[in-house]
Amino acid sequence: MTANTILIAGAGAIGCYYGSLLANAGQSVSLLVRSGYDHIKQHGVEIDSIHGEWNFKPAHVIQHAAELPLTADYVLVTTKVTEQVDRAGLIRDAISPDTTIVLIQNGIDIEQEVAHAFPDNHLISGLAFICATRCQPGFVKHTAYGRLVIGDYPNGIREKTRRFAELFKNSGIDCNITDDVVTARWQKTVWNAPFNPVSVLSDGLDTQSVLQTREDYLRAIMTEVTEIAAALNHPLRDDIVDINIESTRSMPPYKTSMLLDYERGQCMETEAILGNAVRAAHGAGIEAPYLTSLYSLMKLKETRIAQSS
Amino acid sequence: MTANTILIAGAGAIGCYYGSLLANAGQSVSLLVRSGYDHIKQHGVEIDSIHGEWNFKPAHVIQHAAELPLTADYVLVTTKVTEQVDRAGLIRDAISPDTTIVLIQNGIDIEQEVAHAFPDNHLISGLAFICATRCQPGFVKHTAYGRLVIGDYPNGIREKTRRFAELFKNSGIDCNITDDVVTARWQKTVWNAPFNPVSVLSDGLDTQSVLQTREDYLRAIMTEVTEIAAALNHPLRDDIVDINIESTRSMPPYKTSMLLDYERGQCMETEAILGNAVRAAHGAGIEAPYLTSLYSLMKLKETRIAQSS
Repeated sequence: MTANTILIAGAGAIGCYYGSLLANAGQSVSLLVRSGYDHIKQHGVEIDSIHGEWNFKPAHVIQHAAELPLTADYVLVTTKVTEQVDRAGLIRDAISPDTTIVLIQNGIDIEQEVAHAFPDNHLISGLAFICATRCQPGFVKHTAYGRLVIGDYPNGIREKTRRFAELFKNSGIDCNITDDVVTARWQKTVWNAPFNPVSVLSDGLDTQSVLQTREDYLRAIMTEVTEIAAALNHPLRDDIVDINIESTRSMPPYKTSMLLDYERGQCMETEAILGNAVRAAHGAGIEAPYLTSLYSLMKLKETRIAQSS
Repeated sequence: MTANTILIAGAGAIGCYYGSLLANAGQSVSLLVRSGYDHIKQHGVEIDSIHGEWNFKPAHVIQHAAELPLTADYVLVTTKVTEQVDRAGLIRDAISPDTTIVLIQNGIDIEQEVAHAFPDNHLISGLAFICATRCQPGFVKHTAYGRLVIGDYPNGIREKTRRFAELFKNSGIDCNITDDVVTARWQKTVWNAPFNPVSVLSDGLDTQSVLQTREDYLRAIMTEVTEIAAALNHPLRDDIVDINIESTRSMPPYKTSMLLDYERGQCMETEAILGNAVRAAHGAGIEAPYLTSLYSLMKLKETRIAQSS
């Protein structure tokens, strides 16, 4: 097997964890780093996983896509999706006609910016179901799960996508392929839309505390997400709300990614997770009062943060 | 004119401001104090008002209702409405058969606890439209407005209520009488239900900042309050949402009472202002998603505060 040249754009937990497994399996994995470059260049990235501890030494550690000395077969974008990150600009100099772009990111309707910038490239959209955190640049802690779901954007599964999934599987990563990744995004939003903003608006309540005191409220938000998805022709399974409630009940108390960003004073994925969902709902003529409330309150909280800083 | 014996239960801004004006007009006004007793006993209460500065020397400053050496004609309850305050217990020893009880407090359905404890007493329910703050025990700052609306609970206007309103008017207080005080409470909730919790959940955004960035959201909450009130046979005027938006626009940036309580680490009137409104809505078969969201998030925030303290 010839090694593929893979560039990971974003040295957070997702990028480093999956990148390191691909590298361990023999792929040529380089890392585009936005902060902590010197440390990672010198020491690589320490991965402290439920599967063991290892060090990820990227083939190349670069600060700009143009520095990659090879032609990338795959560019995996694993940054957060916020207005502060110009994803197309970040990866542009590493994209050749044959490069497959893979977005492994949270949220609804997060593909269009990249699809528009690179209309002729093969675009895979994916979601990671994982509990992993970058504690500091060059140090990633993986505490649970790890499954990926990928598919072509906006739908379908090309042969190249199946081959890419094989790369993941050969690296020990549980990777499912879907011909409707947009539905998969709505499915993940059933959990993300309530728990992420609620954890921030409550100033840090963990998932178990929320579930124990306000299960009805969580169910109302989740049900609204399923209604929006159905109206947009992405119906979810009937028991999706029950499944999300029960699986959360069996999880240890968990800090959401939005809460971690909030506590660190970093930008939150409010637009990707909530704003785009609300806009999709309104576009379909759905009022979506629960999501609109969460989105509005998050934007007001962000306004206040901006005033205070 | 013979002076009436009036006991004010609650030495906050509302109690001290209105009590001091009644005293200035010749009434015998005593003050039941829960914190700052020594200071108020010795120095009275300083009132710094848009109408001037004055000192309020109560006829008697007491810590327990039983200490009042006179029979109270009127007992004005001006405490916050929270689970932490046993209002009936607070005033019981000052209530004789002829005592009129006057509640000047925020919220929906806040009368029943007192009505149930003193079923044979004349009960007046009232609302204060005022910007006033107790900066510290014995010091009250009054920055705007001052109108009262009072009426018999649950409805009607007795002759005794008219005479009591005259006491206020003779003290220079703008006091309106209503035969439907419950409707007046819903009317005030149109403003309170959005601005109070939103100011807390945003961590301190003032009224102008909220209005400038999320007017649609405010209007959605306000509209929901009008729908609940109408369903409970307390219809509000058609332009009530516009009126509230426009009057807020013309106010200086304002910190809500809930935000002040939050910043001081004090209990908030979440149940009185939101919880009771949500329960009234649900009782009438209305889902009330905007109020339910605000109420749920406030309860989650309070859960978090309790965890942290």
